[in-house]
Amino acid sequence: MISLEQHRDRILSAVRPLAPTSIAVGESLGLVLAESVVGLVDLPGFTNSAMDGYAVVAADLVDAAEDSPVQLPVLGDIPAGDIEPHDLAAGSCWRIMTGAPLPAGADAVVPVEQTDGRTDEVAIRVSPHPGAAVRNVGEDVAAGDRVLESGVRLLPHHVAVCAAAGVASVDVIPAPRVAVITTGDELVPVGTPLLHGQIHDSNGPMLAAAVRAAGATCVEVLHVGDRDDESLADVVHRIAAEVDAIVTSGGISAGAYEPVKEAFAGGGAVQFDKVAMQPGKPQGFGVVGERGVPLFALPGNPVSSLVSFEVFVVPALLRMAGRSGDRISVRAKAVRGWRSPPGRVQVARVVLSHGDEGWVVSPSGGQGSHILGGLAVANALALVPAEVVEVGQGDVVEVHLLPGEELPS
Amino acid sequence: MISLEQHRDRILSAVRPLAPTSIAVGESLGLVLAESVVGLVDLPGFTNSAMDGYAVVAADLVDAAEDSPVQLPVLGDIPAGDIEPHDLAAGSCWRIMTGAPLPAGADAVVPVEQTDGRTDEVAIRVSPHPGAAVRNVGEDVAAGDRVLESGVRLLPHHVAVCAAAGVASVDVIPAPRVAVITTGDELVPVGTPLLHGQIHDSNGPMLAAAVRAAGATCVEVLHVGDRDDESLADVVHRIAAEVDAIVTSGGISAGAYEPVKEAFAGGGAVQFDKVAMQPGKPQGFGVVGERGVPLFALPGNPVSSLVSFEVFVVPALLRMAGRSGDRISVRAKAVRGWRSPPGRVQVARVVLSHGDEGWVVSPSGGQGSHILGGLAVANALALVPAEVVEVGQGDVVEVHLLPGEELPS
Repeated sequence: MISLEQHRDRILSAVRPLAPTSIAVGESLGLVLAESVVGLVDLPGFTNSAMDGYAVVAADLVDAAEDSPVQLPVLGDIPAGDIEPHDLAAGSCWRIMTGAPLPAGADAVVPVEQTDGRTDEVAIRVSPHPGAAVRNVGEDVAAGDRVLESGVRLLPHHVAVCAAAGVASVDVIPAPRVAVITTGDELVPVGTPLLHGQIHDSNGPMLAAAVRAAGATCVEVLHVGDRDDESLADVVHRIAAEVDAIVTSGGISAGAYEPVKEAFAGGGAVQFDKVAMQPGKPQGFGVVGERGVPLFALPGNPVSSLVSFEVFVVPALLRMAGRSGDRISVRAKAVRGWRSPPGRVQVARVVLSHGDEGWVVSPSGGQGSHILGGLAVANALALVPAEVVEVGQGDVVEVHLLPGEELPS
Repeated sequence: MISLEQHRDRILSAVRPLAPTSIAVGESLGLVLAESVVGLVDLPGFTNSAMDGYAVVAADLVDAAEDSPVQLPVLGDIPAGDIEPHDLAAGSCWRIMTGAPLPAGADAVVPVEQTDGRTDEVAIRVSPHPGAAVRNVGEDVAAGDRVLESGVRLLPHHVAVCAAAGVASVDVIPAPRVAVITTGDELVPVGTPLLHGQIHDSNGPMLAAAVRAAGATCVEVLHVGDRDDESLADVVHRIAAEVDAIVTSGGISAGAYEPVKEAFAGGGAVQFDKVAMQPGKPQGFGVVGERGVPLFALPGNPVSSLVSFEVFVVPALLRMAGRSGDRISVRAKAVRGWRSPPGRVQVARVVLSHGDEGWVVSPSGGQGSHILGGLAVANALALVPAEVVEVGQGDVVEVHLLPGEELPS
């Protein structure tokens, strides 16, 4: 029997960030930058107006005031996007829009609200400082400035920064491409009527959704049974050429029919262990195929499978995606106690909520590894240390959100 | 001038959850159930073994003990997925695998670890209680039980519950389909060289990413300029037939060239207001086309656009998706103060982190609505009330995460 931490450490030491790839900035949401981003253009790219108003020479307006406006002839309009060069002679002005290039010779903009707004000759009621309502070229970001650091996970505001800085594509760690393979001859797809002894395959759609919730891409969901033409080992090796990780469920216990164990035991590529946790005692992990693709062999009970995914696969997928340390975990007080097995970390399904005293949890239904009813209302997992045999009311436990959950408000 | 809350309330009172649709459970991740889910099959679907071991009649083993094992002939193997019916005669046993159907007549399972594991005749060293290691039909969930409530957002564990309960498709509120339209003749796509007076269109990719980060689908990103053949009004009405919401950027200020305002002003369908916030003062909102599609007319400065999206569009998209109340907001202490404009809610870009004393924030660079440099390192927005003109060091402010951000660990 090995500890939960030993198994997780073995997995994390075997996986590494995927090779960087270049991607259009518009497709980069959620991916991690493999290289820092350097702006290609000045921001602003040209000196421009910060307001809708009139581009002026400040010195022309030193005497302007609320009760003694100064009249200036308007040479014309400069809309945003006007690519014609314009000159401003002293003693005149241009009507100008927000973001439009300042005409040569102008050094300030008077907002339209401080004028009479006319378009032939305008009455201006204020005396602006030189530079007023003017955005100078490069004052925000200069071409060649580093605008984003390597390691940043790209979110909408980062996309904006890249695009504004003229960066059309970025080098990122791609989202891991994952295949899910369920095993067990008793499984049939949901929607198919059940014969006696059969159950619906819930791990396939569940693990596919969990892969997506972890920010990875689920490229394939397969079921391989003992009577299929292609053996499990062959399926795994074929798929390992195309994906970045493989997750299997079932077939790794101590029984007589354990197809995943049989397909890989002895070869050394995949190691099978008993892990001191409940649920999730049987676990397998290894690296398969010529590309060294990680294979996570999870137990088949749906609850065991989901818990194993959260505890072992999610950290590995995050690491492969260049992410780290962003699992949300909170410490919460038990409002109701429950028992925990001796000598094993219990991964209990709980309901996490925010009470008057901060985070609180209560156990969610039965804790058997086959119990799905209680899972329906759970939103989190409490990790109860191996040496604890009973969580008492008021005890504080470490809680992880279930895949895809957000902190309750 | 109207308040931020007035504008948001007007938007939220005009949008409602989209019409439910039926979807395969494997495609339902992140969507909200429009109807509760009733299980179609018992869970377990048949009485089965909880362990790998031997199915027995408990009464046959009352005398079994560690030092006096009882020998029973093994009638054969029952693997998981075995659909043949089997009978157990008293005085014999079946070898059975986890999840395999219990043979008729058996009332307990002895784990293989408490036997000698043989397959012809097995020596059993314990006396099980009737029911030991047996999962009874329907003990988890009975057919007809409600397994998930309407309003639940479907996550991987819910997908598992549905599939296990035989539910192949579910009625959900679909993800809103959104089109983004940027305006402004000065905009050119990133990757295109700039002429004097032109800037790269950063709002298009930013708003598309923000739509996706909010769980909606961005179906189209368009730029419409004054010189395009199809007018903005025509584009909007054409697209309104195909999408659930439209987000525009730019063209709603007080200038002489405001294409969005010009396309809709006076018609009454879209209302333009000055909102007492900074950035984001100009705002438009209305309902367009025969299907009554909400149109969010956001200001064109990228920072104003993003802030407006977070404050007005995200709550509306969540409501359209059947979600509510799940925006994460925390109260954080300012480690460094900053100024805020009088009479307007400031939506300040800040860096949120977790310090020894809980959540802390510091302002992120310049707060001008055109400043992108500071946005690159921000991860959150602080909402400073209109009556506050200075946030002092140590003051507590309300903080929202930027679209797509997660709480820092």
